[in-house]
Amino acid sequence: MKNFLSVDDVSSIPSLVDRALGYKADPFKQDTLGRHKTLGMLFLNPSMRTRISTQVAARNLGMEVVVFNIDKEGWKLEFADGAVMSEGTSEHVREAAAVMGQYFDILAIRTFPALKDREEDYSEQYISQFVKHAGIPVLSLESATLHPLQSLADIVTISECWKEKRKPKVVMSWAPHVRALPQAVPNSFAQWINAWDKADFVIAQPEGYELDEKFTRGAVVMHDQAKALEGADFVYVKNWSSYADYGQITCTDASWMITPERLRNTNRARIMHCLPVRRNVVIADAVLDSADSIVVQEAGNRVWAAQAVLGEILTAF
Amino acid sequence: MKNFLSVDDVSSIPSLVDRALGYKADPFKQDTLGRHKTLGMLFLNPSMRTRISTQVAARNLGMEVVVFNIDKEGWKLEFADGAVMSEGTSEHVREAAAVMGQYFDILAIRTFPALKDREEDYSEQYISQFVKHAGIPVLSLESATLHPLQSLADIVTISECWKEKRKPKVVMSWAPHVRALPQAVPNSFAQWINAWDKADFVIAQPEGYELDEKFTRGAVVMHDQAKALEGADFVYVKNWSSYADYGQITCTDASWMITPERLRNTNRARIMHCLPVRRNVVIADAVLDSADSIVVQEAGNRVWAAQAVLGEILTAF
Amino acid sequence: MKNFLSVDDVSSIPSLVDRALGYKADPFKQDTLGRHKTLGMLFLNPSMRTRISTQVAARNLGMEVVVFNIDKEGWKLEFADGAVMSEGTSEHVREAAAVMGQYFDILAIRTFPALKDREEDYSEQYISQFVKHAGIPVLSLESATLHPLQSLADIVTISECWKEKRKPKVVMSWAPHVRALPQAVPNSFAQWINAWDKADFVIAQPEGYELDEKFTRGAVVMHDQAKALEGADFVYVKNWSSYADYGQITCTDASWMITPERLRNTNRARIMHCLPVRRNVVIADAVLDSADSIVVQEAGNRVWAAQAVLGEILTAF
Repeated sequence: MKNFLSVDDVSSIPSLVDRALGYKADPFKQDTLGRHKTLGMLFLNPSMRTRISTQVAARNLGMEVVVFNIDKEGWKLEFADGAVMSEGTSEHVREAAAVMGQYFDILAIRTFPALKDREEDYSEQYISQFVKHAGIPVLSLESATLHPLQSLADIVTISECWKEKRKPKVVMSWAPHVRALPQAVPNSFAQWINAWDKADFVIAQPEGYELDEKFTRGAVVMHDQAKALEGADFVYVKNWSSYADYGQITCTDASWMITPERLRNTNRARIMHCLPVRRNVVIADAVLDSADSIVVQEAGNRVWAAQAVLGEILTAF
Repeated sequence: MKNFLSVDDVSSIPSLVDRALGYKADPFKQDTLGRHKTLGMLFLNPSMRTRISTQVAARNLGMEVVVFNIDKEGWKLEFADGAVMSEGTSEHVREAAAVMGQYFDILAIRTFPALKDREEDYSEQYISQFVKHAGIPVLSLESATLHPLQSLADIVTISECWKEKRKPKVVMSWAPHVRALPQAVPNSFAQWINAWDKADFVIAQPEGYELDEKFTRGAVVMHDQAKALEGADFVYVKNWSSYADYGQITCTDASWMITPERLRNTNRARIMHCLPVRRNVVIADAVLDSADSIVVQEAGNRVWAAQAVLGEILTAF
Repeated sequence: MKNFLSVDDVSSIPSLVDRALGYKADPFKQDTLGRHKTLGMLFLNPSMRTRISTQVAARNLGMEVVVFNIDKEGWKLEFADGAVMSEGTSEHVREAAAVMGQYFDILAIRTFPALKDREEDYSEQYISQFVKHAGIPVLSLESATLHPLQSLADIVTISECWKEKRKPKVVMSWAPHVRALPQAVPNSFAQWINAWDKADFVIAQPEGYELDEKFTRGAVVMHDQAKALEGADFVYVKNWSSYADYGQITCTDASWMITPERLRNTNRARIMHCLPVRRNVVIADAVLDSADSIVVQEAGNRVWAAQAVLGEILTAF
């Protein structure tokens, strides 16, 4: 593995999942693999789980870690080629990325979409330019449109919890939120679950919330949440803003909140969410506090997902 | 030791002090005790001494350390059970704490009182909820009403400096300040010095500045600072806001500032302060710059206090 | 070496350069030299290259590193002796520095000039007070008037690139910028290149941009940029604000921007800049993207410069 930007960088999902579970069973089994290698973690936006789990994963492999909140500890970067930098940006990504490439062995980056211009967000210009100019492997800590470390942890979690022979029914359900959120998590989950091909995948969402077909590729889409949830083995809950009416909140229907009633006709589904989750807006307390919620286990698996990816990149050095 | 939230978590103050002094004499004597264990340090407020000394202490024991300024690098947490999170908070402590419990072996937290609602501050809901939901040992880096790592360092410092057979007279004196400050440091010092029971303890303060009796338990309280200081061996200087008229500054009498004149009738007392200290408001330059000031030694002992506590928690694993 | 504040702390530039190049060839050759020693890095201002390269350098030597953004994670320091601290500052440098001296083995500090009062900035009171009160070696990560780690990396870079017998012609050229910038980088470069004495040094600048003679000491100063650049082997580009009309921008002449045309009569000069650089304001894209630009190599050498300095300080312990 060279970079880790999406599922397209993965040669085998099952073996990556196995690697993650192997680290979970024995976190320090390769604690010198990353010796004398430094992971630079660059944040253009806030992050908690991704930030912490990736640090822990890198240290488990013996890597050095340098965290840099460029938005707070540094300055604003320019991403436009040919820009005359007489305004707010102090450094071009061409220099910033190339210099990081001098200091680190692997560069991990967190970026966010502005949710204003769809073409711009979906061009992934921020992370792409880092890949282009850094000259070292780049690891996405969530980009404008994808969150592959989250999706890998999700697949790891489903793998851990599902012991039956038949394919599980996995329903990704939109749920309400008070702010306009990126499509990165649902795009990425759809992309991974399709590539994994070991689940029956259904998307439940209000009309107007169709995701980019590039990621959902033929997934069953239903607008009746209750019906979609029937017989579900896993419910993957997530809000996202509209892709069609880009970045807008076009539905505020509170009945899409996940409650025990809504889950009544599932196959006692396990409840997943990438967190943070707004309680009693996205998911009701009674669901999150029940034994069916696996959101904490899912978040815990972020360590092993990150460690698997770093392990693969280090092995390829 | 499971958690470290107050002196109540300590089985023996003298042996904890010995442990701290042992590390001071030989900082790396147990530099593999914390191998493959991670300390998460979570800040909801600024901190300098506590932040740095605890990091150094953890590394002396071979622990990994991850620092997370949740107020700046993350988002606002919700602490109210049952809250409908449609406003400013993005994540509930139930998830945040449980997830930290997945990533770390010990969780250290710094919180601060709002100084608006006494019941709320004294319920210690913030740190208590972390204890309840993290599922791993929790270490206070100062909570709303207590600062046990500071108090342990204070006791270590007095122990180092006092070689006579008789009990020292320790006077904790209120001093002026321009801002309303928490009662955490004086509450905690009173609680520890009482539990330690190796000093004659007097509190000097203006009327209306009585601390919570739960912590001061029968300490001698005097409103005449000069008289209280007579024969003092140690003067522990600290401002705090009113507990009775909660969070208010009810006295601005500059004559309470600690000056050489005020100390004339002490037993050439050693001067202590937890720092930061506003010079020439709380304590005069001439006192801080004299040989009797032990504030830097006291701050230095924060490392050994933190190392002793981490050492005890690690030993109990 | 005790402190590292300017070239005056260096006994031999050539051997320091050799040390840096030795580490570049074999980064981990002394990876236990700093074992059980902690570098504290204190930032009063933003920093990217200096911050990251120094962290990497310290870890290459086996040191522990604690980073503290006192401006963001702490509070405002007081530097005036005798101050009555009833206003915005919460802690005096006398305590802050002395306490850092308890926690760290080497203290690295980044400060910035206010560019309002020349006497104040050039007194270097901030870093000087840290030196005075910390009681441990202090390493400048850029101070109000000098940036010695940058200059050492610059000399290392010139040494690497220049293989001819004759002295290279090094032209330091002022270039336009939209904000008033410190004189630290050009002051320091002039001071080092003079002390090194292995180059013919010329400064090209608009009238009114004379630097402090204390640092430029008899360097050739020219106001005709094109003429100054004739035959240059290295062009060191940098904006600075006026020293005479202190902190002001007295020239906005865009023709001082470094372009391929401007460089036509150089000896195919290598282009240097400390970064960050505003493209198409200070230097044109066509220059930065050409093979003659060595700005990334120069930034990469910051690691080896910092490692050489830390190595010297550690060896002197």
